[in-house]
Amino acid sequence: MGKPTITLKQRTTPVELPDPLGFGAHFTDHLYEARYEEGKGWFNHTIKPLEPLSLHPASSFMHYGQAIFEGLKAYRKGDDILLFRPDQNFERMNNSAARLCMPALDVAETVEHLKALVEIEKDWIPTNKGEALYIRPYMIGTEAALGVRPSKSYIFQIILSPVGAYYASGFAPVKILVEDEYVRAVRGGLGESKAAANYGGSMLAALKAKEKGFTQVLWLDAVERKYVEEVGTMNIFIRFNDEVATPALSGTILPGVTRRSVLKVLDDWKMNPVERKIPIDEVVERHTKGEVLEVFGAGTAAVISAVGELAYKDNRMTIGDGGVGELSQKLFDELTGVQYGEKPDPYGWVVKV
Amino acid sequence: MGKPTITLKQRTTPVELPDPLGFGAHFTDHLYEARYEEGKGWFNHTIKPLEPLSLHPASSFMHYGQAIFEGLKAYRKGDDILLFRPDQNFERMNNSAARLCMPALDVAETVEHLKALVEIEKDWIPTNKGEALYIRPYMIGTEAALGVRPSKSYIFQIILSPVGAYYASGFAPVKILVEDEYVRAVRGGLGESKAAANYGGSMLAALKAKEKGFTQVLWLDAVERKYVEEVGTMNIFIRFNDEVATPALSGTILPGVTRRSVLKVLDDWKMNPVERKIPIDEVVERHTKGEVLEVFGAGTAAVISAVGELAYKDNRMTIGDGGVGELSQKLFDELTGVQYGEKPDPYGWVVKV
Repeated sequence: MGKPTITLKQRTTPVELPDPLGFGAHFTDHLYEARYEEGKGWFNHTIKPLEPLSLHPASSFMHYGQAIFEGLKAYRKGDDILLFRPDQNFERMNNSAARLCMPALDVAETVEHLKALVEIEKDWIPTNKGEALYIRPYMIGTEAALGVRPSKSYIFQIILSPVGAYYASGFAPVKILVEDEYVRAVRGGLGESKAAANYGGSMLAALKAKEKGFTQVLWLDAVERKYVEEVGTMNIFIRFNDEVATPALSGTILPGVTRRSVLKVLDDWKMNPVERKIPIDEVVERHTKGEVLEVFGAGTAAVISAVGELAYKDNRMTIGDGGVGELSQKLFDELTGVQYGEKPDPYGWVVKV
Repeated sequence: MGKPTITLKQRTTPVELPDPLGFGAHFTDHLYEARYEEGKGWFNHTIKPLEPLSLHPASSFMHYGQAIFEGLKAYRKGDDILLFRPDQNFERMNNSAARLCMPALDVAETVEHLKALVEIEKDWIPTNKGEALYIRPYMIGTEAALGVRPSKSYIFQIILSPVGAYYASGFAPVKILVEDEYVRAVRGGLGESKAAANYGGSMLAALKAKEKGFTQVLWLDAVERKYVEEVGTMNIFIRFNDEVATPALSGTILPGVTRRSVLKVLDDWKMNPVERKIPIDEVVERHTKGEVLEVFGAGTAAVISAVGELAYKDNRMTIGDGGVGELSQKLFDELTGVQYGEKPDPYGWVVKV
């Protein structure tokens, strides 16, 4: 396993974190980069000062969408830097790459190179609870050619952004609109890939939901417009009276690392987690019977996002008392506790840099 | 209507066209560019030497896919330069932009600026029949921000590439595989937009079809996997014994400029063109009865692409005698005749630069 070549920026002043941090608005001094050429494989593994990319206007990903990414976070605990299941992200990235005819990464090597980058940028990791260093690996096809076929060259980079607490004014519930016009993905498409292609198409529905006073949309399946899929850019869980259900991975749903972690914790807690098809009509019907106790999203950015209100067509459902449910709070405390090194880590999810 | 600022490259030698030309592999000396900022609109309309784009690694389209494009061609007839329905392309680009929350262009102004660019690059237009100058307008969201929301800044460019004859060794039929695992688009998604997002996801199916000896795939609808949608990156037409059918624009199919032109010509020729749902089972069944006379694709790159063989599951259907059908040939001759200024242009489709 090779080490990356390192070129450091000459800083004359210490790192000063921006205030407010926000999300994905500020970037650290350095990035990690590797290049790929067909027949040659990955080469030029480098950590270097962040600089603009120089790209030919015909670079194939700009026209044909060979672009995939990942998202994870680094946390500070005293002098320790902690990562949460980074191997899972690079394994998923390889799955996305295969679907879009892009090259695979060496997962173990990439995790080591990420650690080297984060170590160099440790002064950029904010220390308050809820804050973190957001890590954005991404890969693009860069061959300057307009034929519709896989690019013969690629750039893989990891950029870092210090981010503020997702819930700046406390863990608060969100209002969700069930989307019945637009869809996110369909079986046979890119839904289980973390592809740039899945996001641009989702923005219009999100804007329309915001105009109506909602935080995000809940996507239904594209075939029958009947089954719950994801909420905004998160996986969704519904705590019924007798189980905690989340949509099964059918090929259209992103296999979230937080989703997988929540399922494991719920199983340990004997909360009866179930992966299955969830008809939106079942949610509506059981809500009238008082059997929908909680609804929450799970994803890297927010970790857990409690849903206080769910609207489907003309039906506006208050979930629980409209606040943060007991299980949502407990899961949020547990997962962030493990991530920040404040709680025991029985599954070995946390990787020390 | 403003004129673009023009900066010319200093050439010391005349333009020499590469040989072979290929498709989208070589680019001319100059490009057209305009920039957009929220609150300011489009500005800096420029024609300048082609150079790499300098893009922040967090540029939003690289992560969230706000990237759209168009494709059209310029043809030489003696000293004249001809464009084919360029307004249609920029109108479609505005439709794509609206779906992806991107800004609209001024269509008339953009056509004028395109003409100015093509005029400057006229020595790059090959003169042999079948060859042309391929025109690639594209737009990307460039704000350096990782929140999932529309970019606040955009770059629009037009690049030019001299291209060889699509049928280098004569107008030849292709073999098409009906794709029954992967899909191109679904209702509520991006199918009718010319978005980068639609192409990366299609490459795997195309590669698998090539491995089996086919030129391209025929996509079925994503909901019922029953209705014919598009062939590769072209619209599809099926000449039955009593009509020439093409899938109706249902939201999942790209509204092709060549498709629209073919429909108009067929109507004039009293060939009974029909836009409707076409079940693949109908094609199979009527093929056994000898009622499928021709199948062809229609698009900017090939203009008309005759299908000699169509395979669906284990059923391999030879279309007609497996060669180029009479109507396919006649449409190809008519449309390329109009495009190259060799035939009358009754609809005013050709725009002189």
